[in-house]
Amino acid sequence: MKIVGGPSSIDLARKISSALNIPLVNVRTKRFPDGEFYFKFEEDISGEDLLIIQSLYPPQDAHAMELFLILHTARDLGANTIKLFVPYLAYSRQDERYLEGECLSAAMIAEVIETLGADALYTIDVHNENVLKMYKIPVYNLTASGELAKYFSNKNLRDPVVIAPDDEDLARRRAKHAAKVLNAEWNYLEKRRDRYTGEIVTFSKALEVRGRDIVIIDDIISTGKTAANAVKILKDQGADRVFVGASHILLLKDSIKIIIESGAEEVVGTDSVTNEYAKVSVAPIFVRALKGEIEKC
Amino acid sequence: MKIVGGPSSIDLARKISSALNIPLVNVRTKRFPDGEFYFKFEEDISGEDLLIIQSLYPPQDAHAMELFLILHTARDLGANTIKLFVPYLAYSRQDERYLEGECLSAAMIAEVIETLGADALYTIDVHNENVLKMYKIPVYNLTASGELAKYFSNKNLRDPVVIAPDDEDLARRRAKHAAKVLNAEWNYLEKRRDRYTGEIVTFSKALEVRGRDIVIIDDIISTGKTAANAVKILKDQGADRVFVGASHILLLKDSIKIIIESGAEEVVGTDSVTNEYAKVSVAPIFVRALKGEIEKC
Repeated sequence: MKIVGGPSSIDLARKISSALNIPLVNVRTKRFPDGEFYFKFEEDISGEDLLIIQSLYPPQDAHAMELFLILHTARDLGANTIKLFVPYLAYSRQDERYLEGECLSAAMIAEVIETLGADALYTIDVHNENVLKMYKIPVYNLTASGELAKYFSNKNLRDPVVIAPDDEDLARRRAKHAAKVLNAEWNYLEKRRDRYTGEIVTFSKALEVRGRDIVIIDDIISTGKTAANAVKILKDQGADRVFVGASHILLLKDSIKIIIESGAEEVVGTDSVTNEYAKVSVAPIFVRALKGEIEKC
Repeated sequence: MKIVGGPSSIDLARKISSALNIPLVNVRTKRFPDGEFYFKFEEDISGEDLLIIQSLYPPQDAHAMELFLILHTARDLGANTIKLFVPYLAYSRQDERYLEGECLSAAMIAEVIETLGADALYTIDVHNENVLKMYKIPVYNLTASGELAKYFSNKNLRDPVVIAPDDEDLARRRAKHAAKVLNAEWNYLEKRRDRYTGEIVTFSKALEVRGRDIVIIDDIISTGKTAANAVKILKDQGADRVFVGASHILLLKDSIKIIIESGAEEVVGTDSVTNEYAKVSVAPIFVRALKGEIEKC
């Protein structure tokens, strides 16, 4: 077995290689002056069982094309089996056509990944679980909420409450999972997103948070508005420190700034996205999953 | 029959719609704040014969993903047949693995396009004809060199010579094709590209160009170095005005600037790429092709 680190997840691939004591395949990647991606295996991979690690955070299209090209090359050159670890699975918004005529992006990604030869897919906290049903190959949706909770357990939390920033089933299960690790209570806020304007409205719900430390557990920080709203609501209700942990911090524009300005103590993400907020690694989650310990929520 | 204009080729799609007197399908496209593409057919396309127009100029990966998503949606919603017009077919550099372990990007693109349901592909002046062999569906490689030649025929050319900027068969055929339209002589320069450094070396070849007007016909202007070298060599040999016509002007950095500074009179491209140099349209070439008049070189 060998590990292939795609351009978006080189450090993560190194960590996984080290944890599993499985070598990284020597590869060469570059972008031509016109922007086209080039990939080359620097060693023979025919007959090998490969783990390809490539996250699809922004720029999603570039990272997806890199994944497609690496996968296609691996299969073409005779890899025996190919497992993908795509911590951030982009284009996972829609599980059905809410409006007639809409694209089902997740289904396209699934079809391409399968056509190009993937045998299994591992991902972290997918935004919508139903998109996993679009795959025929085995798909493992792992959660980083436990690892995020472990990070916050070092913050000397006082009488903590874990909060899901919205009331969707998946968000609540992630919060519950983190709360279990922290041996804490958990609760959730109510959120509505207008399907046409995209506008988010978070409802204030009376919570017993006065004087307590809060850990918000979210899947994706995109514009940061949802998390910022949640922080503000909790601070308004008298919460003490409010930490924000998210599986995927996409780092758009001033997303972190608005969360901090709304009163958050710290914003923490994972290395599903390569940036300075990636203080928690998803490597151990994947390593355990390979050994059959699937960490779900 | 209906026409779908992808985000990279909206104006071109309009021209084709107008020339064929076939309606454009109402579509909605956008990018979400995080960068993901969204597409929606605003009318029923089930049972329709569709022409999807989407060029893959830079950013190639974004334009390719848009094409994949539109194609996937069209097939999913029951289009009867789907013909693609992809004037600039990105990732067409390699027709084989020159070095062991290399990706065959063109083969990946071909496989995805076919899997997602395209029935035929039309393109303009592909960089390497052999990549077309990777398709099982019918592929038509049309040339814009005739239309480019027509543009230059209005320049009162004096005793013109059409020049191919390198000695590859395809480049020479394009020059010959343009020369026929202009009723002019044609010739070529010799070029070598170091496979490792990517460096281009154009050899000066003694040509009878003194006092004559020159039309350089190229397929792609990428960094602009090849065309700039060619212009310089021809000016050094005493050519009068040197015009540069290219099927695809990718408009990287200062590519046009270096060509003009090397002495070119004018640089002209086609609307295979949406930019200010697109003074020649590929619409009539595609329209004729649909009617069975395949303009090859």
